[in-house]
Amino acid sequence: MEPIGIIHSPFADIENMPIQPKGAAHVEGTVHFRESYVEGLKDLEGFSHIYLIYIFHKAERIRLTVTPFMDSTERGVFATRSPLRPNHIGLSIVQLVKIENGMLTVKGIDVLDETPLLDIKPYIRNFDSVEDSLSGWMAASKDEVAKKRSDGRFK
Amino acid sequence: MEPIGIIHSPFADIENMPIQPKGAAHVEGTVHFRESYVEGLKDLEGFSHIYLIYIFHKAERIRLTVTPFMDSTERGVFATRSPLRPNHIGLSIVQLVKIENGMLTVKGIDVLDETPLLDIKPYIRNFDSVEDSLSGWMAASKDEVAKKRSDGRFK
Repeated sequence: MEPIGIIHSPFADIENMPIQPKGAAHVEGTVHFRESYVEGLKDLEGFSHIYLIYIFHKAERIRLTVTPFMDSTERGVFATRSPLRPNHIGLSIVQLVKIENGMLTVKGIDVLDETPLLDIKPYIRNFDSVEDSLSGWMAASKDEVAKKRSDGRFK
Repeated sequence: MEPIGIIHSPFADIENMPIQPKGAAHVEGTVHFRESYVEGLKDLEGFSHIYLIYIFHKAERIRLTVTPFMDSTERGVFATRSPLRPNHIGLSIVQLVKIENGMLTVKGIDVLDETPLLDIKPYIRNFDSVEDSLSGWMAASKDEVAKKRSDGRFK
């Protein structure tokens, strides 16, 4: 696997970041696509939201249980979005603002500056909207998520 | 990157599969987790839906433009869910039925049997639900997606 681009954000350090796009709704970032892949972006501009699949490049360890920012109890890492998961793969849904010359401007970015991008997929309502989901231990309100910030625990 | 488990489904061949989980709502599959990672599944059972991130292991080529099953026009591969994308990463949202001894039973599976799993993430409504999204060229109804089947074009 090799990066198809690099994500740029205002977050240079893993501490004090929003912990999810919902906590970063107005934060803009850019995705710089590798020139050889720009052709693959055709038609993407019609989608309002996209998935970014990327590497948590500052995660240096793997832990099978973690204490999430939203919680005070150890949880299995696959029941969280922690970077310390095996393979260190991250997933965020962001708003697509524009595409110009192989550069995407996105809104609601919650990743570190210089994050290597592995894939982009369109958010397709017919495939991706989930009705009546249950979110297990994660009972926090949107307001609470928006206020939470990271610390250094997931380096 | 190495698989954290293997996905089993009734689909042995890339032809005549449902093209998305919405077309496979009642299809059950299982995820067999690597024993060394089973501890990381703790607390996942409280979530009704999960993301599977996996490798399109039968995709042998990369194409930057493709003609999707839902369409008759060539689209940029990143504006589609085609397997022929760089890095060959797949993403599906499935319903979590149960977890027993490191084996997950899931519903709504749309991947090939023996698919290597890279990551599982909980679907968290507060992070992942998108209101008022626009789905670009993809204007098909849920009914239409449910009826569509794959053919051999994405081998």
